[in-house]
Order: sequence, then C-alpha cells, then structure tokens
Amino acid sequence: MANRAPEIHGILLVGGKGERFWPLSTPERPKQFLRIFSDKTMVAETVDRISSLIPPERIHFVLPPHLVDILKEEILGTTERNLIIEPEARNTAPAIALAARALNAEPDSVMTVLPADHLISPRETFLSDLKAAASLAQDGYLVTFGVPPDRPETGYGYIEIDRNKPLRDRGFKVTRFREKPDRRTAGRYLKSGNYLWNSGMFVWRVDVITEAFRMHHTEIYKSLLAPGTTDPTKESYARLEGISIDYAIMEKAGNTAVLPARFRWDDVGSWTALERHLEPSLDKNVNIGKLITRDSEGCIAIAEDGEIALFGVRDLVVVKTKDKVLVCVKDRAAEIKKLLSTRDP
Amino acid sequence: MANRAPEIHGILLVGGKGERFWPLSTPERPKQFLRIFSDKTMVAETVDRISSLIPPERIHFVLPPHLVDILKEEILGTTERNLIIEPEARNTAPAIALAARALNAEPDSVMTVLPADHLISPRETFLSDLKAAASLAQDGYLVTFGVPPDRPETGYGYIEIDRNKPLRDRGFKVTRFREKPDRRTAGRYLKSGNYLWNSGMFVWRVDVITEAFRMHHTEIYKSLLAPGTTDPTKESYARLEGISIDYAIMEKAGNTAVLPARFRWDDVGSWTALERHLEPSLDKNVNIGKLITRDSEGCIAIAEDGEIALFGVRDLVVVKTKDKVLVCVKDRAAEIKKLLSTRDP
Repeated sequence: MANRAPEIHGILLVGGKGERFWPLSTPERPKQFLRIFSDKTMVAETVDRISSLIPPERIHFVLPPHLVDILKEEILGTTERNLIIEPEARNTAPAIALAARALNAEPDSVMTVLPADHLISPRETFLSDLKAAASLAQDGYLVTFGVPPDRPETGYGYIEIDRNKPLRDRGFKVTRFREKPDRRTAGRYLKSGNYLWNSGMFVWRVDVITEAFRMHHTEIYKSLLAPGTTDPTKESYARLEGISIDYAIMEKAGNTAVLPARFRWDDVGSWTALERHLEPSLDKNVNIGKLITRDSEGCIAIAEDGEIALFGVRDLVVVKTKDKVLVCVKDRAAEIKKLLSTRDP
Repeated sequence: MANRAPEIHGILLVGGKGERFWPLSTPERPKQFLRIFSDKTMVAETVDRISSLIPPERIHFVLPPHLVDILKEEILGTTERNLIIEPEARNTAPAIALAARALNAEPDSVMTVLPADHLISPRETFLSDLKAAASLAQDGYLVTFGVPPDRPETGYGYIEIDRNKPLRDRGFKVTRFREKPDRRTAGRYLKSGNYLWNSGMFVWRVDVITEAFRMHHTEIYKSLLAPGTTDPTKESYARLEGISIDYAIMEKAGNTAVLPARFRWDDVGSWTALERHLEPSLDKNVNIGKLITRDSEGCIAIAEDGEIALFGVRDLVVVKTKDKVLVCVKDRAAEIKKLLSTRDP
C-alpha cells in the first residue's frame, strides 16, 4: 500500500428489532445476540474477526440503551467508552453520524462500519480486504464492500461498477447504486458481472463521511456533526429522519468506491438463509436441535430446546423456543414482520 | 321396563398408549387424562356421566399399573377396590375378561363397558339409553351402542341391523358386524340407514359375556374365566392373544344386539376430530391456547402453553407442549403412530 497503515476504528452496528429471526430473536435479544452458527453470538464473532487488526479501545458499538446490558454480558471487557448510544432506532444514517461525531477529534482516522449480524469467512481474507478498503478510504473515497453475486437475489441492493475503470487496491469507482431489483433484473445483473451486492459494510475517513453528511443530508449534519452541536437528546434524535446511509449519502455522493469482496459473505437475512449454511438431511430438511420427520422434505426446523416432529409437510420453517412456535411457509419467511404486526401489542 | 332395574357395574377402560394425541398425550398421560374439552379430564367426565346411575363402589377402572397413580390423582376417592389391573396392554378382549372375572361373584349383574376417552352428551340421554341397553342385556343379549352415522366415516367399524326386526327398548338384533369400510362403502352405509357406527361401548350380564368367552375364545376363557383359575401373572397375561372384543366375541356371537344411540358421541380419535368440537375462526382455523395467524387457514393449533404463530400455511395440525412440537398435515393426523415409530426408543 502506498500510504502508511491507517488508524482504523471499528463501528459495529448493534441495533435491530429482532423480527427476522422471531421467535428465536426478540427485541430484547435480536439476531446479533443469537448463537446460530457457532457457540458464540454473531456480535462476538464480529469482534473476534477484527480484533487482530483493531484493538478493543478502537471498537465502538452503536446500539440502543436497552441492549447495553446484554452487550456487556456477551462482550466481556466492554466499557462505557466503547458505547455509542442511539437514543432510539433511527436507521443507519443517524447511527453512523453518531459514530462520526464520537470520532470527530480524529478526523483523518478511518472508520469501518460493520453490521454485527453478518456471516463472514475466512477471517484472513476479510482482514486483507478491509486493509485494502481502508487504503482506498484514505484517498478520500466512501468505500463499500461489494459482494460478487452467485444467485439472482432480489433481497439486496446492487452496486454497478465499470470494470474498465479500476482504482488502486482492487477497488472501483461506483457507477451507480441500484435498489433491490425484480427477479428478471437480478438475473441480468448476475450475468453481466458488473453488479455487486451492497453488503452494508462501509469504510471511510471520519472527515470524509462528515463532509458527505454536510453536502447530502444537512439535517443530520446540523443536528449531530456541525461544529458546536451538543449531544442529542432522545427528543432531538427522534426528530431526525430515519433514513439509511445508502439513501442519505451513498446514492448521492460522487466519491463512492467499491471493493469487490474476496471473502464469503451472507447477511443471513431470514430463516431460509440457514439452508445455505446447514447440512441437509437425505430428505433435504435442515435443522438445529432435535428433529424427527416422516414423509417431510425441504423444511427448516430450529428447536431452541425440546424436539420438533414433522409429518407429511414440506417447505416449512418451523421454529420452537421455550414458549413460542412459528410455522411459516418457506417462501414467506422474509416477511415475518407482517405476521408480527398482527400480534397484540 | 319389564324387568326390575338391574344392578349395573361401570367398567371404564383406561388403557392406551397415548399416541393419537401426541405430543399432548404420552404413555404416562394418555388421552383420557387430558383436559381438552373441559377443565376435567375425559376419564373424570366419564365417571361424572354415570355417577348418578352407578355408585362409586360399582365403578371399576381397567388399567395398566403405570396409570394407577395418575388415576388416583385425577379421580379422588379411588381405592384399590375400584381397580382392575391389566398386567400389560393386551387389547380389549383380555381387559374385558379381567373385568368379568372380577365380577364373577355377581353373575347376573350387568356390566357396561365404557372407554374413558369418548365425548358424549347430553348426559340424561346417555343414561336413558344406558338403562335401555341394560334392560336388553338382562334378556341375555350382548348389547352394543350403535351410533347413527352423519358422515361416510372410514375410521369406524359398522353394525348392520334389520329395522324390520326390532327388539324391545328400541334395540335391534345385529345382522352383522362390518369392518372399517372404504370410502365408497361408507357412503353406501350412510345412505342405507341400516348401518350404525360401532361405538366400542358394550352392555351385558357378567354370566352372558363369560359364556360368550367360553364359546368363542377358549384361550382367554380358560386363562381368566373358567372356575378355579388363579389370578393372571404378568407372564400368563402377556401370553394371551392381544385381540379386540369385536373380533374375539361380537363378530362370532349369535346373541348380539344393538341400541341406536340417541346421545351425541365422538371417540375423538385424532387431532382432526377437534374441528368438530371447537369454534372456527373466520379463516377456519381452530385453536386451543394462544394463536396468531396471517394468511393461514384450515389449521388446528393446540398450544398447551405459550403461543403458536402460523404464516402462509393451510390444513396443518400444530401442537405445542412445553418441550415438543408436532407439525402434521391434517389428512395424516390419524397416522401419528407411524411418525412415532421413527423415533429413537
């Protein structure tokens, strides 16, 4: 790399409503605090993944107050200095602005923004890519990790690149951010080779993202980032637009770059994602916990405790916690929040 | 009635493997000990139903040793004198022979054999029919309650009668016992009006059933009913043929009669029977316990505790106990024992 190794801060986004993996996830224990794929929570895996590159004092958790206790339980050694409290959930743009505000004494340090609930491997490849992204970030780019698609996924946004215009360190300038496509468009993106999944993981200098807010989202800038602003109150923060960083900044900024990921990535966005990570039985059921089946296939069965028995059914998601059971047809597993909206408050 | 009111003994069959309503029912708490339709167990409902006609000292429970404790818990006041212990489960013929053996000091008293897991109402109508059946039994008939069918049920045996040859007290001689029919035959039976469901409830004199065993099942007679026999051991009882009373006696005997039931009867033979007894929601789901649904219909959801959530599914049986969940397509709910046979012992 041309520059000296940058000072990197890890910004872990730990918010979340706990709806996608309901009933295993709950508002009190959202997905990033589940142990689905290993005996560690996903947030602990995220910390472990970066810890050889980023020391504990430069790892920051952005999270709402009600998750502070569980975070401290799960990530031993976490102190108040590691915490960036979101007064309430207002989507990623305000959360990231809070992090930039917290780091404003180090304007030329690099911050890498990482959701705490993604599956990533191998670690070494990720860290190598992260260093490359940080190097691009030092040049003044707002860098996104772009994941080469392996299926016509309609659940992700895409990033279009021009492979004829590479940047250094394997990066590309972003041609355009694309919203979640329909199936046909997703197929075209997959074939073209010029579209990458928007992973929701970002790397940039503190001063560069601050300036981007100033240019592209004045409201958040004035409230959280302009010189002389005071710490947000619950009320002032609640008044901010609940907007994603993609909409607020990335789709508008001219200095966006993307680094094609060489690591494996999965945001594990719904129960059906588990089929990509669990070994299927002969009848194509996958399970965590105890399962008995007869004449059943293509099911995803998750028993937090006890036992699930399937008889004569197919393509279902069945999840059992101590007190709740979800039975959901697989192709609607991404819409669980619609089901939850029918519950009594 | 022409005869004096007979001395009636109630013989309640309390055995059962607990498979049909698994996982709510278990070998340790079979269906007759569940509280599904009221706040009382089905065996308690059965006792209540006959208690105005049959005093406690003439109510006898035929059951295996491992159900004695739960019976005593659920039916307060039960003493050893009320118990007829089956050394092990050998179907209804040996169980009924055990009961006849226990009552052999009163050869001309009437015994009414009642499974303890049927739904019957109203009570007054049942008792009135029971008195009529007892009166027929005093005449020397082996009397079965026959239930007028209201659907072409393939899950029951049928009893053919000749309506032109009535006995007194609304009874008929049995023309023939018919095994479980196929759908088409069941439809024909339903139309004809001369076929009644075999309810599995019987009324006869002790001496008459004893003589029937002597004539039609010598093995059981010699082992349990012949003069001078000793109490069965676990080993001697286990050697008996595990045969139903229908096969062993009723289909062979010439003195069989049937009383068409005026009461409502349901043997609640599988989860789907619940649809006949529970009030459906607008989307035709029925439930016991807490249920939330979206875009789901025709399901039977039973939550012993906690909550069941259904999303985008139809025609399923979903049952949740504290530690187990069953998800079964409705039209195979009667075959749960096949599912259980796949479990580890």
